[in-house]
Amino acid sequence: MNKIIIDRNKNMPLYLQVYNQIKKFIENGSLSGGYKLPTIRSLAKDLGVNNITVINAYKLLEENGYVYTKVGSGTYVCEGIKKEEEIDENFSLIDQGEIPVKRGVINFASSSLNPELFPVDVFGDLINRVLKRDRGYAFEYQDTRGYKLLRESIKEFVKKYEISTSIDTIQVISGGQQGIDVVSKALINFEDSIIVERPTYSWALASFKSRGAEILEVELDKDGVDAEELEEKLKKFKPKFIYLIPNFHNPTGIVYSEDKKRKVVELAEKYETYVLEDDFASDLSFVEEKILPLKAYDKYDRVIYIKSFSKVYMPGLRLGFIIAPERLVSSFLKAKYVTDLSTSGLMQRAFDLYLRENIWEKHIKELKEVIKRRFEKMGKELQTLKNYLEFEKPKGGFYYWLKIKNNISAKNLYSKCLEKNLLIVPGDMFFAIKKETNFVRVSFASCELDEIDKGIDILKEVLKGQSNENGIYLPII
Amino acid sequence: MNKIIIDRNKNMPLYLQVYNQIKKFIENGSLSGGYKLPTIRSLAKDLGVNNITVINAYKLLEENGYVYTKVGSGTYVCEGIKKEEEIDENFSLIDQGEIPVKRGVINFASSSLNPELFPVDVFGDLINRVLKRDRGYAFEYQDTRGYKLLRESIKEFVKKYEISTSIDTIQVISGGQQGIDVVSKALINFEDSIIVERPTYSWALASFKSRGAEILEVELDKDGVDAEELEEKLKKFKPKFIYLIPNFHNPTGIVYSEDKKRKVVELAEKYETYVLEDDFASDLSFVEEKILPLKAYDKYDRVIYIKSFSKVYMPGLRLGFIIAPERLVSSFLKAKYVTDLSTSGLMQRAFDLYLRENIWEKHIKELKEVIKRRFEKMGKELQTLKNYLEFEKPKGGFYYWLKIKNNISAKNLYSKCLEKNLLIVPGDMFFAIKKETNFVRVSFASCELDEIDKGIDILKEVLKGQSNENGIYLPII
Repeated sequence: MNKIIIDRNKNMPLYLQVYNQIKKFIENGSLSGGYKLPTIRSLAKDLGVNNITVINAYKLLEENGYVYTKVGSGTYVCEGIKKEEEIDENFSLIDQGEIPVKRGVINFASSSLNPELFPVDVFGDLINRVLKRDRGYAFEYQDTRGYKLLRESIKEFVKKYEISTSIDTIQVISGGQQGIDVVSKALINFEDSIIVERPTYSWALASFKSRGAEILEVELDKDGVDAEELEEKLKKFKPKFIYLIPNFHNPTGIVYSEDKKRKVVELAEKYETYVLEDDFASDLSFVEEKILPLKAYDKYDRVIYIKSFSKVYMPGLRLGFIIAPERLVSSFLKAKYVTDLSTSGLMQRAFDLYLRENIWEKHIKELKEVIKRRFEKMGKELQTLKNYLEFEKPKGGFYYWLKIKNNISAKNLYSKCLEKNLLIVPGDMFFAIKKETNFVRVSFASCELDEIDKGIDILKEVLKGQSNENGIYLPII
Repeated sequence: MNKIIIDRNKNMPLYLQVYNQIKKFIENGSLSGGYKLPTIRSLAKDLGVNNITVINAYKLLEENGYVYTKVGSGTYVCEGIKKEEEIDENFSLIDQGEIPVKRGVINFASSSLNPELFPVDVFGDLINRVLKRDRGYAFEYQDTRGYKLLRESIKEFVKKYEISTSIDTIQVISGGQQGIDVVSKALINFEDSIIVERPTYSWALASFKSRGAEILEVELDKDGVDAEELEEKLKKFKPKFIYLIPNFHNPTGIVYSEDKKRKVVELAEKYETYVLEDDFASDLSFVEEKILPLKAYDKYDRVIYIKSFSKVYMPGLRLGFIIAPERLVSSFLKAKYVTDLSTSGLMQRAFDLYLRENIWEKHIKELKEVIKRRFEKMGKELQTLKNYLEFEKPKGGFYYWLKIKNNISAKNLYSKCLEKNLLIVPGDMFFAIKKETNFVRVSFASCELDEIDKGIDILKEVLKGQSNENGIYLPII
């Protein structure tokens, strides 16, 4: 094993220093699966630390899925943890929009609506009204916080989510991903800890990692993150924030219960940290019950609320907003400035009218009808595959999250489907600690009903074929 | 002095470790001006290192303006180095667009043209053509690299700068600042070194610092960076890249000589690093001679070329591009993805037509005539202030860089001018190592001829007044 360096002047408990370094050795491949770690006593002696330091480090490695213990034998590195390079390869291959989608391929991977659903004429008119009204001012640098009238419109718009705020805490951004990036820039310093759900949105992980953050996963139950595990990790790691997708979670489709939402806010307050709430789809509910963002429960000003207009309205707009806790407003402003100075004025002004004149209401109503039909259709078809797949019907959003029975790996299923011109997303990429999984995500966002039919047929064909073939089964991980 | 920690396992020479930590103590204010550093012998003994390690660290601190030596007495921390908090305050106060510009204030601070100069009708027509032609596709997520036809147009466009490239190395970005941010994200890891000119564009500094980079300054001569000092620092620090603004430099207006451009490229190749070329204004030349970007001299594929369309065309477009060395293409792509997924499709498509149909040529010609009149006007008026100011007439761009005689501080001049409703930019913010300076930057980008007249009158009034007042003189730093 590489040398572990203990720095007693560092403001980090010793067991965490040991943990972090062994974790890195595993992630960069210098310790591979099956490797036996030194005994507790010998490592403690080598490092000049107490046994308890090493015990705590090993325990944490085990909790986070990096090592396992064989009783009476020792501690071993887990199999199947992917190296950084392999992850990168995955990223460039598979994520949304980044797979070169060939003509004729049925796209169950997309997270955006098909372009026929965008209200082009309506928006074109708004743009022309703005050009006529504001002339060159629409093309100037805008206030970095965002065009004032748009912030006013947003303030009114979020009342439908039972969020009340002032325009001073609203920061306009060029889409949800930029929101995550701006928050990361403002809050994450090298080696800070961040807590995420297991699984979660992969490009949020990429943004946190790019800032040098230590990512910690907490298990996701059916009603939201495991509160006990969350509290334990909050206590232990003092993270900069907790990144959550409380409604129509990506990739699992889960909605947090009201109780869980309240609990999360309480924990953030108790441990003096923040929750970064990524709301990309709360407008796309297919049930009667009222589903509110976490921010609506935020009585302590601990929730950083990011709302993207891209997914549900038009991706090409590149528009969204952050509602920031008051303490964080100015650091977000500076981060936004460093990121791209300001968001396109023309788009902001046109979107202001779109909100201000309630044009979005009609649009979202029509859209929901179309998407709901796709959602029901896909659900119905997937029911016929219950021999091969387990899944819960989500309450909204874009995705079904499928567990493949018989331990067929997601990557295999992905490849076989692609051969037959169906694109799905292997679950592997939604985990901070990369392992092969038997989960896949399928989306109905951009598919017409007949495409859903065809896609499910392909999936069925592949699943049937797979379970008869040999050599494609994987050990349970 | 705080404790310095030496880590012999770290891949960083010991003297640099000492240097970095003392530098940080000075920057975070825990060592203030006038503080006497420990003697070489005592510090070396404390740290368990050779005398030469401390000697080299102190020498570097002196070279970079953090400390000075009194012969026979010792090494002292320089006065006037600003603390991080003070810098932040400066940032939020003064940079472009961030000062709340009151009505009636004459704006010599702006780096963008006044909106009356934007070709709104022409661009409005292009947008409408795109909406009609591409419908919803203009609002979809775009290829992260950029809309293909736009990249083709850019490939043709840059031939005017004698740059020949393929569309595969072109990365579309949402403006020049995002370009800097994307490159930083792709290349800078915590504690990497970056070399910049002294002075330089402040928001590039902010982006590098946000990644945890160590910033090293190299003096700027009249024909470009000091090549000898550059080579020395390249040798010593192995920086990730050198950030330069070779044409119509911000803030000084300097143009690098052809020889210097060639030299810089040679040095980048010799020391296996990159040059990040920020080209925000090379279209705005007011002289006959041909002035080409550094990228045109780049026979080794060592120059990362960032071109913003914001400054000279329309800021609100939020459009620009990177031409990347082949080795860096995929890392920039990933960084762009993490930053905001992709740039607005509608803007990309409209701007494609703007380039493709050579509409820009007529626009830039008309624009240059207007700006050149402002440039000449401001130059003529500034001549009348030669008793108070020193400056070189630039060959293009937006700025005059003024050295105030009599050691009046820039910050004082800034405040006094603002009282009389003239906004100028104090030079302080263009230096990586923050000190008070007696430089100011004045811009003619957004002022009509009569406003230039009025602004210079205010400047004259203040300068005359200042030199009669007591108590506002500062020691030379």
